[in-house]
Amino acid sequence: MTLVTLPQIIAARETLSGHLHRTPTVTATYLGQQLDLKLYFKLELLQKTGSFKPRGVLNRMHHLSAEEKARGVITLSAGNAAQAVAWAARQAGVSATVVMPAGAVQSKVEATRGYGGAVIQTAESLLDTCLAIQRERNLTLVHPFDDLYLIAGHGTAGLELLEDVPQVDAVIVGVGGGGLISGVAAAVKAHNPAIQVIGVEPEGASAMTQSLAKGEPVSLSSVNTIADGLAAPFAGVHTLAHVQAYVDEMVLVPDTAIIEAMGLILERCKVLAEPAAASTLAALWSGAVKPTPGSTVACILSGGNVDRAALKRLL
Amino acid sequence: MTLVTLPQIIAARETLSGHLHRTPTVTATYLGQQLDLKLYFKLELLQKTGSFKPRGVLNRMHHLSAEEKARGVITLSAGNAAQAVAWAARQAGVSATVVMPAGAVQSKVEATRGYGGAVIQTAESLLDTCLAIQRERNLTLVHPFDDLYLIAGHGTAGLELLEDVPQVDAVIVGVGGGGLISGVAAAVKAHNPAIQVIGVEPEGASAMTQSLAKGEPVSLSSVNTIADGLAAPFAGVHTLAHVQAYVDEMVLVPDTAIIEAMGLILERCKVLAEPAAASTLAALWSGAVKPTPGSTVACILSGGNVDRAALKRLL
Repeated sequence: MTLVTLPQIIAARETLSGHLHRTPTVTATYLGQQLDLKLYFKLELLQKTGSFKPRGVLNRMHHLSAEEKARGVITLSAGNAAQAVAWAARQAGVSATVVMPAGAVQSKVEATRGYGGAVIQTAESLLDTCLAIQRERNLTLVHPFDDLYLIAGHGTAGLELLEDVPQVDAVIVGVGGGGLISGVAAAVKAHNPAIQVIGVEPEGASAMTQSLAKGEPVSLSSVNTIADGLAAPFAGVHTLAHVQAYVDEMVLVPDTAIIEAMGLILERCKVLAEPAAASTLAALWSGAVKPTPGSTVACILSGGNVDRAALKRLL
Repeated sequence: MTLVTLPQIIAARETLSGHLHRTPTVTATYLGQQLDLKLYFKLELLQKTGSFKPRGVLNRMHHLSAEEKARGVITLSAGNAAQAVAWAARQAGVSATVVMPAGAVQSKVEATRGYGGAVIQTAESLLDTCLAIQRERNLTLVHPFDDLYLIAGHGTAGLELLEDVPQVDAVIVGVGGGGLISGVAAAVKAHNPAIQVIGVEPEGASAMTQSLAKGEPVSLSSVNTIADGLAAPFAGVHTLAHVQAYVDEMVLVPDTAIIEAMGLILERCKVLAEPAAASTLAALWSGAVKPTPGSTVACILSGGNVDRAALKRLL
């Protein structure tokens, strides 16, 4: 199985340069003190479209042929990849169709339309619906997570983190389909294999944990979590391979811990982490991950796309 | 009247270096498009203690004599200066007493105590109570805003903004006692007098606007605004002088506009701006400030200290 290499991630960084934000990493002093850690948050929630996703998507779009672009692209997503594909397609002058679940976060649907994406919502299987429309309309599929160009693009977040916190001992990343952790882990392990990379899934959407146990990608018949950004119902072939090769530990957290972590991040660090992002602090706060006391730990706050109504309910 | 000079601000920057965050400035693309502006937010809400205040307070503490430090410091504040003084005093090994209003935001009271400050809450005049305790206990007064060392410290935020957005045409700053705008305006005008500096007050706490009109510091008998960070009941002698010398325009905004702006910043930019900080976007969004279309405008998001319960109510 092919794994993304450091030169591919560095090349992605050059491709993205000038198009995306170089997001900051901040210290979380109070929360770190409570946990007896030197704690950092990488603020991917400040990225264009409100999540890390355009890193991979722009890199993927860059490598499409003129013919593939001319046909238009299609993807499937609960939200963040939807926004990123619509946004990146508009940048590239390409038409974008996005298949989203019927129950997608309304602000994510609206933002996707706002970026010019044609949204199709379905209560049926996202993947089946997407593939059917793709064949019927002869569109170019941009996978939401299981693609090497995507993974290389996401890896650029790992390069930036290493620049900002070169002494990091452990990096914690939320896992949906596994695109972000695959890229970040590839970057981090190429730099220093001793740095621990830890993945977090919600208890109600543990496709990667189950896939690791089984040794092949598992599809879940249903998912149940507040972290819509981590609610991928299946792991990817490529992402599973990267997690197998590079991720040291996978842990599960309950939604209650994720909600508590969202509130703590908002109150103490003044940034809006969506549940998928807050899962990283939830893993520490709940004790699911126990780093060495006094060590340096970085959480990637992967996105900040939360409905205002949902936020009001969760606070 | 003495005005803070650029060398004094540069000296403050050296004093603060390594103790405080160099906060990032981010683009607010969507909000800027709606306003036909190139819009930037300087994220002072990511500063230590959740507001810009420690910039000035640390600089003030640095210039206290050993004898003044040994006596312990006292200040009066609705919250952000309280936290900053308690935090900075702890850094310097100095005891801190803080007089806060009976109705202060609870999380600000708790945070001040958390930093080791002795909090005294009063329903009487903050200034009179503070001065009485200061005399009685022979403490060193650290003014919450009307002090040249404070103003020079706050000016460091202006220097950073100029580095990040050198092409800025206008800078918008919320005005309570006027310490932040005084320092920022001194820095900005020293760099380029053509850059507009605009101050924003809540309709219910317009001490600076009234002081400008009268030509001397005015005390308000009462204030009424959701922006506790801008609810100073009087302008300072030094801050009025800086505003007279350097600020091009003062505008008023209603609380309704501030609340709307808070929601927009949270939803679109993923950061928690307290009402005092959101007043800057409120001035643009409500039309109280109308910059030249297409121009580059920076708002200083001065802090992010909001009670969770208050936020839930406001969303």
